[in-house]
Amino acid sequence: MLSGKEVAQHNGRESCWIIVHGKVYDVTEFLNGGSRIILKYAGKDATQEYDPIHPPDAITSNLPPEKHLGPVQPDTVEKVEIQITDEEKERFERIERRPSLSEILNLHDFESIAKEVMPVKAWAYYSSAADDEITIRENHAAYHRIWFRPRIMRDVTNVDFSSTILGHKTSMPIYITATALGKLGHPDGELILTRAAAQHGIIQMIPTLASCSFDELVDGAQPEQVQFFQLYVNKDRAITKRIVQHAETRGIKALFITVDAPQLGRREKDMRQKFEAEDPAEVSKTGKDNVDRSQGAARAISSFIDPGLKWSDLDWFKSITKMPLILKGVQCWEDALEAYDQGLAGVVLSNHGGRQLDFARSGIEILAECVKHLKEKRGLTFPNEKFQLFVDGGVRRATDVLKAIALGASAVGIGRPFLYAYSAYGPDGVDRALQILHDEFEMNMRLLGAPTIKDVVREMVDASNLSSHVVAVPSDSLFNTNYEVMQHAVLKLPLKAKI
Amino acid sequence: MLSGKEVAQHNGRESCWIIVHGKVYDVTEFLNGGSRIILKYAGKDATQEYDPIHPPDAITSNLPPEKHLGPVQPDTVEKVEIQITDEEKERFERIERRPSLSEILNLHDFESIAKEVMPVKAWAYYSSAADDEITIRENHAAYHRIWFRPRIMRDVTNVDFSSTILGHKTSMPIYITATALGKLGHPDGELILTRAAAQHGIIQMIPTLASCSFDELVDGAQPEQVQFFQLYVNKDRAITKRIVQHAETRGIKALFITVDAPQLGRREKDMRQKFEAEDPAEVSKTGKDNVDRSQGAARAISSFIDPGLKWSDLDWFKSITKMPLILKGVQCWEDALEAYDQGLAGVVLSNHGGRQLDFARSGIEILAECVKHLKEKRGLTFPNEKFQLFVDGGVRRATDVLKAIALGASAVGIGRPFLYAYSAYGPDGVDRALQILHDEFEMNMRLLGAPTIKDVVREMVDASNLSSHVVAVPSDSLFNTNYEVMQHAVLKLPLKAKI
Amino acid sequence: MLSGKEVAQHNGRESCWIIVHGKVYDVTEFLNGGSRIILKYAGKDATQEYDPIHPPDAITSNLPPEKHLGPVQPDTVEKVEIQITDEEKERFERIERRPSLSEILNLHDFESIAKEVMPVKAWAYYSSAADDEITIRENHAAYHRIWFRPRIMRDVTNVDFSSTILGHKTSMPIYITATALGKLGHPDGELILTRAAAQHGIIQMIPTLASCSFDELVDGAQPEQVQFFQLYVNKDRAITKRIVQHAETRGIKALFITVDAPQLGRREKDMRQKFEAEDPAEVSKTGKDNVDRSQGAARAISSFIDPGLKWSDLDWFKSITKMPLILKGVQCWEDALEAYDQGLAGVVLSNHGGRQLDFARSGIEILAECVKHLKEKRGLTFPNEKFQLFVDGGVRRATDVLKAIALGASAVGIGRPFLYAYSAYGPDGVDRALQILHDEFEMNMRLLGAPTIKDVVREMVDASNLSSHVVAVPSDSLFNTNYEVMQHAVLKLPLKAKI
Amino acid sequence: MLSGKEVAQHNGRESCWIIVHGKVYDVTEFLNGGSRIILKYAGKDATQEYDPIHPPDAITSNLPPEKHLGPVQPDTVEKVEIQITDEEKERFERIERRPSLSEILNLHDFESIAKEVMPVKAWAYYSSAADDEITIRENHAAYHRIWFRPRIMRDVTNVDFSSTILGHKTSMPIYITATALGKLGHPDGELILTRAAAQHGIIQMIPTLASCSFDELVDGAQPEQVQFFQLYVNKDRAITKRIVQHAETRGIKALFITVDAPQLGRREKDMRQKFEAEDPAEVSKTGKDNVDRSQGAARAISSFIDPGLKWSDLDWFKSITKMPLILKGVQCWEDALEAYDQGLAGVVLSNHGGRQLDFARSGIEILAECVKHLKEKRGLTFPNEKFQLFVDGGVRRATDVLKAIALGASAVGIGRPFLYAYSAYGPDGVDRALQILHDEFEMNMRLLGAPTIKDVVREMVDASNLSSHVVAVPSDSLFNTNYEVMQHAVLKLPLKAKI
Repeated sequence: MLSGKEVAQHNGRESCWIIVHGKVYDVTEFLNGGSRIILKYAGKDATQEYDPIHPPDAITSNLPPEKHLGPVQPDTVEKVEIQITDEEKERFERIERRPSLSEILNLHDFESIAKEVMPVKAWAYYSSAADDEITIRENHAAYHRIWFRPRIMRDVTNVDFSSTILGHKTSMPIYITATALGKLGHPDGELILTRAAAQHGIIQMIPTLASCSFDELVDGAQPEQVQFFQLYVNKDRAITKRIVQHAETRGIKALFITVDAPQLGRREKDMRQKFEAEDPAEVSKTGKDNVDRSQGAARAISSFIDPGLKWSDLDWFKSITKMPLILKGVQCWEDALEAYDQGLAGVVLSNHGGRQLDFARSGIEILAECVKHLKEKRGLTFPNEKFQLFVDGGVRRATDVLKAIALGASAVGIGRPFLYAYSAYGPDGVDRALQILHDEFEMNMRLLGAPTIKDVVREMVDASNLSSHVVAVPSDSLFNTNYEVMQHAVLKLPLKAKI
Repeated sequence: MLSGKEVAQHNGRESCWIIVHGKVYDVTEFLNGGSRIILKYAGKDATQEYDPIHPPDAITSNLPPEKHLGPVQPDTVEKVEIQITDEEKERFERIERRPSLSEILNLHDFESIAKEVMPVKAWAYYSSAADDEITIRENHAAYHRIWFRPRIMRDVTNVDFSSTILGHKTSMPIYITATALGKLGHPDGELILTRAAAQHGIIQMIPTLASCSFDELVDGAQPEQVQFFQLYVNKDRAITKRIVQHAETRGIKALFITVDAPQLGRREKDMRQKFEAEDPAEVSKTGKDNVDRSQGAARAISSFIDPGLKWSDLDWFKSITKMPLILKGVQCWEDALEAYDQGLAGVVLSNHGGRQLDFARSGIEILAECVKHLKEKRGLTFPNEKFQLFVDGGVRRATDVLKAIALGASAVGIGRPFLYAYSAYGPDGVDRALQILHDEFEMNMRLLGAPTIKDVVREMVDASNLSSHVVAVPSDSLFNTNYEVMQHAVLKLPLKAKI
Repeated sequence: MLSGKEVAQHNGRESCWIIVHGKVYDVTEFLNGGSRIILKYAGKDATQEYDPIHPPDAITSNLPPEKHLGPVQPDTVEKVEIQITDEEKERFERIERRPSLSEILNLHDFESIAKEVMPVKAWAYYSSAADDEITIRENHAAYHRIWFRPRIMRDVTNVDFSSTILGHKTSMPIYITATALGKLGHPDGELILTRAAAQHGIIQMIPTLASCSFDELVDGAQPEQVQFFQLYVNKDRAITKRIVQHAETRGIKALFITVDAPQLGRREKDMRQKFEAEDPAEVSKTGKDNVDRSQGAARAISSFIDPGLKWSDLDWFKSITKMPLILKGVQCWEDALEAYDQGLAGVVLSNHGGRQLDFARSGIEILAECVKHLKEKRGLTFPNEKFQLFVDGGVRRATDVLKAIALGASAVGIGRPFLYAYSAYGPDGVDRALQILHDEFEMNMRLLGAPTIKDVVREMVDASNLSSHVVAVPSDSLFNTNYEVMQHAVLKLPLKAKI
Repeated sequence: MLSGKEVAQHNGRESCWIIVHGKVYDVTEFLNGGSRIILKYAGKDATQEYDPIHPPDAITSNLPPEKHLGPVQPDTVEKVEIQITDEEKERFERIERRPSLSEILNLHDFESIAKEVMPVKAWAYYSSAADDEITIRENHAAYHRIWFRPRIMRDVTNVDFSSTILGHKTSMPIYITATALGKLGHPDGELILTRAAAQHGIIQMIPTLASCSFDELVDGAQPEQVQFFQLYVNKDRAITKRIVQHAETRGIKALFITVDAPQLGRREKDMRQKFEAEDPAEVSKTGKDNVDRSQGAARAISSFIDPGLKWSDLDWFKSITKMPLILKGVQCWEDALEAYDQGLAGVVLSNHGGRQLDFARSGIEILAECVKHLKEKRGLTFPNEKFQLFVDGGVRRATDVLKAIALGASAVGIGRPFLYAYSAYGPDGVDRALQILHDEFEMNMRLLGAPTIKDVVREMVDASNLSSHVVAVPSDSLFNTNYEVMQHAVLKLPLKAKI
């Protein structure tokens, strides 16, 4: 058994050991892979930093056995002193001041509170997106180009918004989509979502990059609870095969293969945050050769993703699993058609929450395109049981979901809003978020004149402006500043002010 | 006769009595219907809270006779002390500072002043709308997409903007549409509108949810004054029948059946206001199970509305009344066509002032659609005496009305602006509002080259952009902040500043 | 000869005398015509208030001879004490601080300076427009929807932007259009424009409502200087005949009959200004019956305009004058066509600078429509010598003018910019303004690849968005406030700030 | 040899001598050409002012030999005292506070820092553009109207974004375009770009108006380094011939003839800056006759440009050089077609960075037009080896470049971003800028599913809104200020604040 003192000597670039959950690992080789942040914990106990951003088995899976140096004597390990900064103290104080959950009226509200009470880095990681963050906002904006054509005088005493996804029942036409690093927002991470999904009768898609391990999330489910799995394909197909077959064995009902992330995107807001948070001395020392360092932990644990994945790999997938295969991240009708022709079960029209290619179009816009062309080319109509279309990104209201359903989606994935919900309020937050969506579905289906999801049809929306990507002519500053804005009637001055 | 002391003992959830206008009622059962605000007045005199939001007969109509406990001895009732808060004092001071009515130049001005001088809750109730309040603003914005093509060299010495609505004369092509809870803005409530309608020769539509009772509003009318009635259909059709036939007996000239509100919409601005105004201790106690409590009195008195109303019910309506039937809240041409085919007298193209389904389209946009399709399908032209199209929502100027007339409307309903007018200035406010509209009609018909309403024709407007629901590409923050805005010539510094 | 004392006794509504330029007039009857502001000068010398807003002969032309009471003894007249307010003092100080004329780089700059140095009322009168002032801004905005398609490799060593208007030579394809009350901005009023027009070889259109008299402006012209005349048609056609024939006699070369102002528009910014400026005591006294009082002097002197003017009157005009007739204020192709068919010399496509009907379209948009339809209906091409199209409104740059020329206009009218130029800098300002336009024409014709005005052709502009009247979907406040705007790199904190 | 004292006597308008690099020149005649700023240095050593804005040989080339008065005795020259203003001191302090280069994440960041650390005049010169600066912003905005249609499941393990330009290899599909006065931002001027181009394997276009001399920039290149030359055609064709043939002799590989600048544009931001920076006394003295003075040095040294250049001159160019000829500044398909028909090697679709004709369209918009019409008229497809299309203006991201490539461009010119890069950080800045572009190309080609530049095809972009020049209807101020913006949930007040 190693002593803390011995570990503490391996605290540099030449030899870097760290302690995680009482065991010592030689992570020197990680330093060259861009994960220089590890150095901060060289020779020390890194558990607290490690936990929120790695599943428990990440280090063991990624390090060869000879680098597992075995347990350390607990009492010999020097405590890493946690300095609580003034910023953190203020944050704790803000947590105390959260409004009661009953004052949270919509999904936006969770985000507002999460922004106040989350650690700055965690907020930056969840909220950031690619380049100029045009696409992340477009994802939401696109829904505002779709307007309703509600019907009247239909019996909406009882409205039923349950539906099925790939043949599995769901209480609402939504699912919890895969997002990474769930413990950044709450120590229980994705497990919160597993439980909320059970409670509300909806389906969770387990992410490859969860903070919780895959088995934890399956173990956390109720008997008969349906779960899907999101897969990043590993360069080492043997690993992929093992993961996929393990998932199938554990009862996963569908495999969503991510195809929009051959390389994880640059998210500058996240990168800038890291600079601010780090030791300025270190920053200036490392200089210009240090471009990638700032891309942080997510990049490090994602470097396994295979940029060589191609259509011809699908046969191999079909050979290793019977789970229905869905491509996640399809972005034009041509690729949706190819997926259909290859016999897949569906596609998720998505741009990865705006985190990958900026100026990628919104899923909802691609949906309209796919429905149109797959009808023309193959005579398909949507929603379609055999080949299902899903969308995700930008959803904040049940009306957003209903627009997607009307345009032909089978269901809609929601991600960040649930992260914000538990980052702000823990499990109760997610419960409340789902309750709000439930209430919104009930209300809005009544107002639409649609007693069931099947009654939410294409004619109920006007999406004729969906593809209008308008950027106005730059403003005329001189004219505008000369223009004197009209004023409405105003109260007279108070008497005291008149004297 | 009950004593105040006895009443005061029934002050809890188990038994809850209240006093209204000197009579005692057992309202325990209302507590379970969501109206928990009543508890605040349990065992006390609730008249002051009750009056602005209920017609006088509401409690007697809704409570079974055995819950009418009879009169209370007036002098034994403990006075509910009215605390005048600092906010209220400041509001009273603002009322003193209102500008003279002659400084009110347009309908917007009433809203500006009302916002300052109304109780915050009343303002929130009148001004709030559904979800993200997109539709309430769209209702007005849509008018700005319509532009005039005025004609010249026509004799407009005399312009006549009188017209008829369902065969009844009106001095302007507008009517006062139904809105709820009129006493929130002024103790005389909707009666102010009844009188103003008489004075200016226009028609008032009496609301089901008026603060004044139906009979008060009919009694308040002049002989020969034409009134319409807006109906929320009760789940109990016997009640509906009684109300409708009473209305017909009292001389109501047309029945407007609301069809866009099977359930009353969530208005978050209103809900948020209620949280702020209430006792924070109570809020935290009630916790998350209390979702609906915040939806307040309007919800409570509207729970009778039948979400099961359907097209086949129209035959029944025809069997119980000879009044012309108009559907209020039609939102697509298909339903307008159905109403026409069912032999109704017309439809109001409306989204309930943006208070029901967000992203419902504006009435004016639906108007253009209906005119087009009813022409194609049934050869109708508009305006049409047999089947009239009305619109409401978002109107602030006579030019807005004239745009609707040009597009084929028979008349336009105006609601909130009159509420703001009397909330700010009482009856004189509504008088002034109507005078302003009168002046605007005269001016603008002259400028349009239209001596009469019949001369306001389709060719006078360009509505080609009416259906453009544009949301711009999200802005490029980095580029825009780098751009240095151009400056115009500026004065030299003052001499003193130079030294 | 009357004494000041005697005049001073006629200071009320029953009998109201005023002194103007040493003569006494009984203006009692004007009080009933809305001009109650006169009362302020009842019994006093009103010259100073009268001058800027009336031509010298206004009072004599409008009052019957028996109301001309003759001269007053000058030394007996009580001086009306001019109180110089603090605001005025500050304004005089700002006049001292005007930047040198060489710092004025464009027409916008004059407006910026004028806004600072003009009396508030004068600014309000010049800058205000109808209703919500949508059209006045649209007039300028419309030019920004037109983009250039410049040509290269053409010899632009010498560029010549002279042209002809109705057969008369002009050094640039612009003219000074008619605007009212020129002395509000400078005591010399429209005479400044007469002289500048001569100096720069352009044409002035003399306004009916000039502060200077018609004859002053004709007398102020150089021999051979071409002037046009803008006519408001009087209800009394005998007066109109006299005016028109006098104009012809004096050598006016074309008659522009205003057809977009059967009634002068309400300009709320102007009206609101008047309230602020006046005695609050008086305002509250007059109460609500006093609606029109605020519309001020311009309304009073314009009440003669005939709202009954019609197409059939044109024959009469042809019978009383040989001057070419042009309609000013045509707003759709149908009326332009009618003018052509009636044999007129042209039309001005204009909405009266946005001061009449709000939501009237811009002249430049109407131009494109007219060119298209007059080609279709009558085979006309533009620019056209026989039937000329003019536009005005919103012009600030030579590029604006060149866009109009490319679309088919013969010339463009410019109004407010010249008023602002002399209000800010007197005659030198107008000289500079014209020099700036001259420089801009030279530069931009070179850059367009157009050596002469004839080379500025339709293919040089892309006007395909000209008729797009877009109003965006209302913004999503909750989403937008949650979104954290991206920040660019920033400087490190200063050392001192770090400690 | 002249003495400083003697030189100092020629310090007026009648006789004006200056010293540059130890030699005396009689520049009296320049004073009449608008270059009155020279007077400030009359009789003195002007080297420091002269250097950043003129190539070393400018004065000798432009002055006849008899005005070269020979060397001055160095020790007799009175030192021009350089006053370091407070503003300059603050700027030096800001230079110290620049963030480390590793914190610069994108090209925008260089601009942000350059704006802080550059001399105000230099910033104004680089950043300013024509008239209202609409086009400079449109150049960037236009890229935001183009959206991606990325493809998935393609092997992007290796991405190669090298390409060729006019047959010469480039590591990325970009080149450094010609910009003037490079020493304003850094004393090494354009030489920095020459070296960076060599290091990163891209091509520099040498500008006629470089601060460094042509030969310096060619001498600074590596053997085999490809350079292009941008030519302003001189009125004196003999000079042009000499320059062109010298360029060819020195190994220049292509001649880009600027055709969008027969006269250099007015840039008001730059002009206004000059006024502010100069002696106010002088400004008021010179008065209104001094219009051109403010246009500064750039104008003076550019007055040689021939506005008479025309298509028929191309034969002459072909007769004096074998270099491929490309027209820089083509702005419509008609002229691109003409260039093709005349056998040129290509065109640059450009509006001179928005510095010439305001409301000229963006290069990227013209690109789409040219590809369409040259296909229709001549059956060409793009990118095309025989006739290449280039664009420049507004590029900030590799995604911008990839959009142009997808639309048919062979390569994209980038100018200002590199000036800002070295103005902020010197040569390291440009190195970092190119590295950032490199990283962005790699990332975004992966995400697009394009392993090579040839895989970036037309179908990968949706450019259907590219030509939408939308200007919204002016806003409704009264309605908007009355509207109360929705608020999200907020934290409770801190406890202390409650007391």
